[in-house]
Amino acid sequence: MLQAIDQYPSRRREDISPFPRNEPVIHGRDWQSCRSSDGPLTTHQMESYEEKGFLWMERFFSQEWIEPFFKELKEIARSEKLRKRREVIMDTQGDEVKSVFAMHTLSKRFAEIFSHPDLLSVVQQLIGSDVYIHQSRINYKSGFQGSGFEWHSDFETWHTEDGMPRMRAVSASIMLTDNNPFNGPLMLIPGSHKLFVPCQGATPDNNWQQSLKTQKVGSPSEEIIGQLAEENGIEAPTGPAGSLLLFECNTLHASNRNMSPWPRANLFCVYNSVENRLERPFSGKDPRPDFLGARENTRALRAIR
Amino acid sequence: MLQAIDQYPSRRREDISPFPRNEPVIHGRDWQSCRSSDGPLTTHQMESYEEKGFLWMERFFSQEWIEPFFKELKEIARSEKLRKRREVIMDTQGDEVKSVFAMHTLSKRFAEIFSHPDLLSVVQQLIGSDVYIHQSRINYKSGFQGSGFEWHSDFETWHTEDGMPRMRAVSASIMLTDNNPFNGPLMLIPGSHKLFVPCQGATPDNNWQQSLKTQKVGSPSEEIIGQLAEENGIEAPTGPAGSLLLFECNTLHASNRNMSPWPRANLFCVYNSVENRLERPFSGKDPRPDFLGARENTRALRAIR
Repeated sequence: MLQAIDQYPSRRREDISPFPRNEPVIHGRDWQSCRSSDGPLTTHQMESYEEKGFLWMERFFSQEWIEPFFKELKEIARSEKLRKRREVIMDTQGDEVKSVFAMHTLSKRFAEIFSHPDLLSVVQQLIGSDVYIHQSRINYKSGFQGSGFEWHSDFETWHTEDGMPRMRAVSASIMLTDNNPFNGPLMLIPGSHKLFVPCQGATPDNNWQQSLKTQKVGSPSEEIIGQLAEENGIEAPTGPAGSLLLFECNTLHASNRNMSPWPRANLFCVYNSVENRLERPFSGKDPRPDFLGARENTRALRAIR
Repeated sequence: MLQAIDQYPSRRREDISPFPRNEPVIHGRDWQSCRSSDGPLTTHQMESYEEKGFLWMERFFSQEWIEPFFKELKEIARSEKLRKRREVIMDTQGDEVKSVFAMHTLSKRFAEIFSHPDLLSVVQQLIGSDVYIHQSRINYKSGFQGSGFEWHSDFETWHTEDGMPRMRAVSASIMLTDNNPFNGPLMLIPGSHKLFVPCQGATPDNNWQQSLKTQKVGSPSEEIIGQLAEENGIEAPTGPAGSLLLFECNTLHASNRNMSPWPRANLFCVYNSVENRLERPFSGKDPRPDFLGARENTRALRAIR
């Protein structure tokens, strides 16, 4: 297979300046002329997503409906057998579960929520095509635990380490617990998705074994993050369990330590366009395991009612 | 000198449960019957301080008036000579200044602000007597730096390590920069000042050399912090430079990492009643240096106009 030209070079020895993305934020037909006829999102919501790179939908699911998911997560976190699976990433601090990947392959309940018609129709509207699950995970910070994540663009990693060719993927983050200012909510820089910010330095072999615990390469310089935050500010949407945060694959985000007693668990499903399936990683390294970037099961999702 | 009976035992081998404080929050004459005639604070403000253990006064000083103080701090942070003084505490992460103690002895400008009549009259109203400076410091988190502070009560340390007999001191924290949700603002548990929470474990010799960088002893258990936060919540007042946070010496507080590009510098002055001067440390150890707990200059402050 011939490698496509790398539209988004990163992890090079030289320092490459940020440059504008080469493609639209919202894909498919000219959505502005279609109004809201193509899906459940209003024109106002679509415009806000296009401008900021994310969309917050409070109480998308009800708290009661979401509760069993958090219960199942706590069972996974307690299960010695599951904790040994490689899909389960432990925190560097202590003995706590930090992330569980491929939730849709580990649990029928989670597989079904990702194909929920309310969710799928919103995501298809933004991506403008059929979609499949590129990656799913839970990020979990129990009370007083959870070291957080440095500033990064997911797309930078997925492009470089997984070979995702274009920016045509959306992360749907469903709050399994309340998110408040003290339990380490996701912080985003509005508008940062409009630029691609290359990172400097080569990707080590099997970088994922380290980077899922503490990210070292793949985080832009403080200078660039500083400039973008000065220009656009930082936002951290907070709200009750069941709320939904949709964010574009290239939006810069981070999260802080949880210094409260309140656990913070967010479920993530990354939907990628079926027209944007993975190629060879642009880093030139071997692809990461399938639970981090799907190559095997990339059939278009159908809504499960 | 005969050691007084220890009203607030802590750092023992055994686990002592939290118990109610033995004294009022606001001292002096029966302030509720005096209304606001004794000072600038209104009855409503006094009641709020008594109930929550802190009082937030936005724009107490103007931003313009406070600016030279932040400039002077940055000069200190850059000065190789000053950085070597033992009053200057470096962050464990990297090469950044975390705290500068005894600001009123290092700088005339800072000495004067601590005796500003607007500030002094407020503090005297809460403490109900003349006051002196027990400790002063700046806590500094430059952009993307600053590891924060674990949950603790200042009084627990000042009592155990410095021999402060009673809860009759107030911290005045003046914002030298804007404090926002992303640059590591102070978090407090409202109402936590009503309980004394003993900490378990002996105090190591010269504990302060370690504890000012990363606190290990003197931080209550997660279980207790969790209970108090569940009951009372957590608050993190934020606002522009020049704002003032007054908090009672026994109010539990903490702060998180600064993950933003915006520096966060807060000036602290701890006012203690002249009727509450230091005795021998209740830990039985030697007293800490004078810049952490004043024994030499404890004359009553007079307003500098």
